[in-house]
Amino acid sequence: MAEANVAGNEEELKPYLVVDVKEMSKRADALRAQGKRIGLVPTMGALHLGHLSLAIAAKNECDVVIVSDFVNPTQFAPGEDYDKYPRTLDADLTLLSQIGADYVFAPKPSDMYPDGFDAKVHIGGVSQLLEGEFRPTHFDGVATVVLKLFNISRANVAYFGQKDYQQVQVVQKMVDDLNVPTTIEMLPIIREPDGLAMSSRNQYLSSEERKEALVLNEALAEAETLIRGGERDANVIYAAMRAIIERAPSAKIDYMHIGDPKSLLPLERVAGNVVVLLAVRIGATRLIDNRIVER
Amino acid sequence: MAEANVAGNEEELKPYLVVDVKEMSKRADALRAQGKRIGLVPTMGALHLGHLSLAIAAKNECDVVIVSDFVNPTQFAPGEDYDKYPRTLDADLTLLSQIGADYVFAPKPSDMYPDGFDAKVHIGGVSQLLEGEFRPTHFDGVATVVLKLFNISRANVAYFGQKDYQQVQVVQKMVDDLNVPTTIEMLPIIREPDGLAMSSRNQYLSSEERKEALVLNEALAEAETLIRGGERDANVIYAAMRAIIERAPSAKIDYMHIGDPKSLLPLERVAGNVVVLLAVRIGATRLIDNRIVER
Repeated sequence: MAEANVAGNEEELKPYLVVDVKEMSKRADALRAQGKRIGLVPTMGALHLGHLSLAIAAKNECDVVIVSDFVNPTQFAPGEDYDKYPRTLDADLTLLSQIGADYVFAPKPSDMYPDGFDAKVHIGGVSQLLEGEFRPTHFDGVATVVLKLFNISRANVAYFGQKDYQQVQVVQKMVDDLNVPTTIEMLPIIREPDGLAMSSRNQYLSSEERKEALVLNEALAEAETLIRGGERDANVIYAAMRAIIERAPSAKIDYMHIGDPKSLLPLERVAGNVVVLLAVRIGATRLIDNRIVER
Repeated sequence: MAEANVAGNEEELKPYLVVDVKEMSKRADALRAQGKRIGLVPTMGALHLGHLSLAIAAKNECDVVIVSDFVNPTQFAPGEDYDKYPRTLDADLTLLSQIGADYVFAPKPSDMYPDGFDAKVHIGGVSQLLEGEFRPTHFDGVATVVLKLFNISRANVAYFGQKDYQQVQVVQKMVDDLNVPTTIEMLPIIREPDGLAMSSRNQYLSSEERKEALVLNEALAEAETLIRGGERDANVIYAAMRAIIERAPSAKIDYMHIGDPKSLLPLERVAGNVVVLLAVRIGATRLIDNRIVER
């Protein structure tokens, strides 16, 4: 366990690790009562620069930064990678100590979902497409845990990465429809120098697959180039993206999608701002990426 | 519109009527920022002494009392009494002015459920029995609107009447499972002098039905007498309750139920504290009532 977590030295040592749900609520409540503005960065741990960029934004904009570090079982379907998902709490704490995050909230699954737990937050519309088709129970799990985390942390603001673009839209829709008193901020995708979007799942890739994974960003770049060059036919753009992705021998496309930035409804012809999203399996690893094209 | 609602005179004139969701959130947010403790009394209007007892408790325990007055369409099934449910906002405001409630929040359905609204909070377990069997979509509607009202009002405490006993358990389960930062208080049933539990639906009863409706409370009193006298067999108690209810010619029993006070799971033999619940139709009017028997 990192040194930063010795209890009783909260003033000097950050982040302070909280594992108990009730303790986190109580601390957050006390902070809000003192008028502090709380920023939450919900993560599943295995932190990379993408997550850290969110925590840095929270640090700049809020009085207190809580980073949740919880691999949420309910957003994984049977057969997905819940068991092998990387868990690196010590390393996460070290990284977060360097940017001055105040609290790391790393609850046990049995404290988040005690015996008899039986609640579900379901968001329709934007959650039904794309990831919602390939992972039908995923967004119910996301919406439910995110609402729990917002409630526990009493967050004024919560920070999400654009990498999970559809997730951000689902969370924003939940906030709107349920009048949740938390503001959502979406921050840009952070990429490796060669263009691969940072993801905790990138570490599943073999070195050969790691090279092949570049086709996601390359396909999105091509889509943007075509759109900026005046191409309006989504099918023409998909064909060009497919040609790039198929250069990777182990790539299998789950979807390519050009949609409205908010509803994500598919567009046959590009009009106004759009978001281009894709999900591609590289061998056994499923990767997603996206690009907003504003005009 | 009652005089109490002239805007700009909030200091003198209470309650202040708010119809806009965003305005209510904003005011509640400002009150919380000032450190005020907010008590919410969620109602569907048509206020009677049962509701007022909740508002009085809120007044005693909180700095600010918000009474929501909203006939929530999503908790009524097609064919239920949504359209004919009594709407008496002016009278409600007058009553609430007498006990010093601070805000009445009476939103429009189209502001609570704007076009494209697509969220649902589902609570399992305790919501599946009894009312959940007779009204399968009811508690999803209740849980969703109550969570919205908690979020909009930023309530520290919310007050519910024991009359809707199962509803209170569903709301408490939602609060527990979703870590909602609102404390639930349940207050005793308020009855007419002859024993009928107060309900906005009592006004549907003809004068003959009004007399027949007394069998609900009489059956519950008999159940308590039997339990206190040592009877432990639920079926014996149900038979005695049925004999009383059948004295009313237009009574039809939806359910009689002896259950665990928290889970509401049925008990064949009475053991420890129990709650006795029933739902009876008197002509076209469906009434519910209950009694906690603590030993």
